[in-house]
Parts: sequence; structure tokens; C-alpha cells
Amino acid sequence: MSHDKPSIAAVDWGTTRMRVWLLDTAGRVLDERRSDDGLLTARSRGFSVVLEQHLAALRAPVTLPVIICGMAGSRQGWLEVPYVDVPAPIGGILKSATAVKGERSDIRIIPGLAQRLQSEPEVLRGEETQLAGADLPEKGRHIVCMPGTHSKWIVVEEGVVSRFGTWMTGELFSLLASHSILRHSLGEKPSTVAADNATFRHWCETALASGGDIASRLFSIRAAGLLHGLSPDEAAAALSGLLIGGEIASARRVYEPGRQEIVLISSGALGALYGTALEIAGMAFRPVDADEAVRAGLFAAARRNGMIGNGVAA
Amino acid sequence: MSHDKPSIAAVDWGTTRMRVWLLDTAGRVLDERRSDDGLLTARSRGFSVVLEQHLAALRAPVTLPVIICGMAGSRQGWLEVPYVDVPAPIGGILKSATAVKGERSDIRIIPGLAQRLQSEPEVLRGEETQLAGADLPEKGRHIVCMPGTHSKWIVVEEGVVSRFGTWMTGELFSLLASHSILRHSLGEKPSTVAADNATFRHWCETALASGGDIASRLFSIRAAGLLHGLSPDEAAAALSGLLIGGEIASARRVYEPGRQEIVLISSGALGALYGTALEIAGMAFRPVDADEAVRAGLFAAARRNGMIGNGVAA
Repeated sequence: MSHDKPSIAAVDWGTTRMRVWLLDTAGRVLDERRSDDGLLTARSRGFSVVLEQHLAALRAPVTLPVIICGMAGSRQGWLEVPYVDVPAPIGGILKSATAVKGERSDIRIIPGLAQRLQSEPEVLRGEETQLAGADLPEKGRHIVCMPGTHSKWIVVEEGVVSRFGTWMTGELFSLLASHSILRHSLGEKPSTVAADNATFRHWCETALASGGDIASRLFSIRAAGLLHGLSPDEAAAALSGLLIGGEIASARRVYEPGRQEIVLISSGALGALYGTALEIAGMAFRPVDADEAVRAGLFAAARRNGMIGNGVAA
Repeated sequence: MSHDKPSIAAVDWGTTRMRVWLLDTAGRVLDERRSDDGLLTARSRGFSVVLEQHLAALRAPVTLPVIICGMAGSRQGWLEVPYVDVPAPIGGILKSATAVKGERSDIRIIPGLAQRLQSEPEVLRGEETQLAGADLPEKGRHIVCMPGTHSKWIVVEEGVVSRFGTWMTGELFSLLASHSILRHSLGEKPSTVAADNATFRHWCETALASGGDIASRLFSIRAAGLLHGLSPDEAAAALSGLLIGGEIASARRVYEPGRQEIVLISSGALGALYGTALEIAGMAFRPVDADEAVRAGLFAAARRNGMIGNGVAA
């Protein structure tokens, strides 16, 4: 642990996970905690209690201000923070953080985004902060891909979030791997898929070649196990390739990036898989580390809301 | 119960359900039983025991021959009956029924079909018998749709099964309704969707308009609940419309029926939903009752295998 004094606690509080960083006045990481105390746990134990425990474990001062993004601001969360409707300037989203009353310190939650189009309703919480921290150029049109349980694709035009969509890719993988007939093919504990896996690449190509039509191919994974001896590890790679390739083909159809570079905000093994899939699709991309982006977004929000002392608020 | 003497017991034995009919020498139904004693139950209690109980409840003679189709012939079933590979003449499939040894009566199980294409592996068990009983014309190319947990689309050319595919539409509906984030929108017990439901039609059109790309639209059902007050019943109709419309768009892409009539082998509410979806897609279809088809197929198989007495074997 660093001996520098923290200026803010930055919290990414999702459905299943919670991450806490102590940041100094320049936004550098002094210390961090990662836990499974997401929304589901915090609802039963109390958001305030869970937060205090993690801050105490980090030996943070009890009066340290806390900036939060993610599902903690949802109806099932700590405090329902109303969505900001798109089109929305990125800077304005961060400024709309709402204070949690009656706590010992200044705690604020950043709002999510809503797209109220009758034909294409969408919501997100947490990704707006990653987006704000991704350091996109102010000018031009940018297409951002954020892989995950619910992958988000976001279009930003001249600094304004204009449109976004959700692909339930990670959740579909889990559901199909654990609960569908494909579980017989994937086995008990599907191993992590490597980005250079030939089976992953093959099924990714299949999904891309059919314009993202995954429905016609899912059962083939089961049949390939029965007829061609596809192993459990290969079946997991096949399902991953099919779903990720399908997401990319589908998002390409929806947002028509053409030759435009995709901003891929992700980290670790999943980021590598999406990178491979984008390469197979012939789509250029620029990787941005998701952890760094969310921290930068939280720090920017703290500054915009005047939560960081000594007049450094932007 | 009829007082006529049964000539055969015809059994459709699937993963979760089992149906038994007593048929007379002309294939007419004398009596029937429907139960949840599918593969999963029968594996624990014993196939022979389960079958005898149902036949006893129908007061069938212990020596009555029994013809079976479905998952009872799978590796996890009573007796593994090897798949017949496509291309396969329909008549030949029925003739390949395999006898279960050591039983008091003549019991035979009809084989399923395998498509061993490296690029498009597929298997089915049970649908081959429905297909055989659907009374397709000997000549020409026919495209058959069999909706269900795992919907099958089968292409028959000049009496030969040439190609088929699986869409996990029913299973996806169950998984998403019970285990995904959409369960919050659909509620505990999704009601049955009526074929004239406007929400069903709208989401079906959406899926058809995007060429079967359902992945980009699934989460919108959740968002429509949050933003537009979509009710649980409407959410169920939306999911059903999206998945069924998606299946039809996808199968149309794969099999290119053009203006050709689809043979829709189905029954009840599900058949009505597929009929509506095919109409919305502008695809002509001819409905065939699934129960009648499987009984006719089982009866034809019993005759082809010489199981029906007095020299009536075809």
C-alpha cells in the first residue's frame, strides 16, 4: 500500500462484482480491492455496510468522498439514479451524479443511460463511465465495443452519445454452457478459451459468414460432439467463437462502421478473443484497457462534481 | 376404450414426454396414454418397467408388439440404435428398426438420422417418423418445418431426406424466460401466447426484417419493460415472436424456399404461432397434424418391419 493520501474512493459496483480503488489527487491508484460483493450480495447485507467494510480494509479515512458507477444506481440498487437520455454529451452524464443522503462522507452515484426509442429501447449503467474515461477524440464519429455479460456497442458523435445497443453474449454463453443441451458437450467446467484457438477461429468465421445468424448453428456444436468427437474444450471454444462472431456480425449490420476503427474497451482474455474476432472480421480496432478507463471516468466524475478537495474541480 | 383388438402399440418416446397409442390393423387409434415418463424418468425407473406399466394401464396383451421412435433409441436411451446417414430414402429409415432383445414381446426402435457433413453436423430422433407419416408426395422437393424444443427443418427430394437443420427455439425460450435477465421482465409463469397477439406479431416482424438477427434485440425486451412499461405477458409474446421470427428468417436464408410451400408439421398453440409467423414472412404453408403424422409413421414402420400379423406387412 502506498503512503500517499487518497483523495477519492472510486467504486465500480456491478451486478455480481465490486471494485474499489483509492486514487490520489492525480488519479493514480494507491490501493484497490476486488470482490464478489456486487448488487446481489449488497442488497442483502446493505450497501452502506459493504462499502464501509471495504474502505476499512483499505484503511481509508471515514470521511473520504466516494464516487460510484454501475448497478448500485439501479432500481434494485442503493439509490435509484434516473437515467440520462441519449443523445447525451459525455461530460454532462458525469456531472449528473446523485448524492446518497445520510452517510458520513460525500457519496455520489453516476447515472446510467437510456435510449427511449420505441423501436430500440436500451439501458446501461457503468459503461457510460468507462466511455468517459476512454479518452475519445472530441471530434468525429466513434464506435465503441465493450465486451461482457451484456456487451454494449456505443456510437459517439462529436462528443455526444447518440445511440447504443446490447448483445447478451456473455450471459448466453453461461446459460447455454450450464443449462442447455450443449452442457453435455461442454462438460462441467468449460476451460478458458485462448484467442489463437483454431476451433474458436473456425466457428467465429462461420458466424461472420452467415451475417450473425447463430440460431442455425448452435445445435451443430452438440451434433459435432456426437458425430465428430468434438471435445469439451473444443465445444467451449466453438460456442465462444459462434457467439462472439455473431455479436460482431450483428453489430456491424446495425452500426455499419465500414472501414472505421472500432474502440475496443476490454481487458484480459475476453479482450483478446474480441480482438481476434474483429481481426477475422477484417475490422480495424484500437484497444483501451477497461480497468483504466473506468478509473479515469470515475476520477473525472469526482472532479466534475467538485468532490476532490482544494479547488481542483474542473 | 374401444373393444377392438389392438394390432400394435405405437410409442413416441422423447426426452421429457412419452406417448403410447394402441392402434388397430388399419392404424386407427383405439386408446392412448400421455405422460411425463420421458427419457429422463425412464433412465432411473427402467425403460421396460415404464413401458409395461403404461401398456398394463391400457389393458394391452403382454405379447402385443411395440414400435418406438424418439430418444429411447439414443445413447442415453433404452438401446442405442445407430443413426441412418443422410441422404436417406424415407422408406429405408423405417425398415431399419432395431429389436430390443429379451423382452416378452416384439419391441423395435426406429433409428434417427445423422448428417455427417463436417461443416454442418446434425442429428435427429423421432422427427424421421413424423416425416414418414406426413404423406409427402413422392416427387419433387419439399421443405418441412417441425417446431418444438429443438425445431427441425428437413429437405426431402424425390422421397429422399437430403438435408436438415436444428433451431433450439423452444429451449432458448425456456432458458431465457427462466434463467436470464429477461426473467425479470417475463415474470414467474409466462402465459401462453396467442397467435393473434399484436406484440408477438410486432417482434416477429422485427426479427424477420433483420434477417433473423435476434442477438441484437433480446435485451430490448428487458429495456422495454424498464422504459415503456412492457407487461410480463407482452414480454413473453415479444420473446416468442423474436425467436420464432428469427428461426423462420434463418431457415429461409439456409434453405431458400422461394415461393415454395412449407410443410408445417405441428399441433396446438405452437403450430398456430408458426403459422402466423410464416404468414408474416409471406411464406405459403400446408399444415399437417404432428400427432397424426407420428402415429401414421409408427404404423407404417410396424408394417414395413412385418410386426403386424396376418401378412399385412408391406
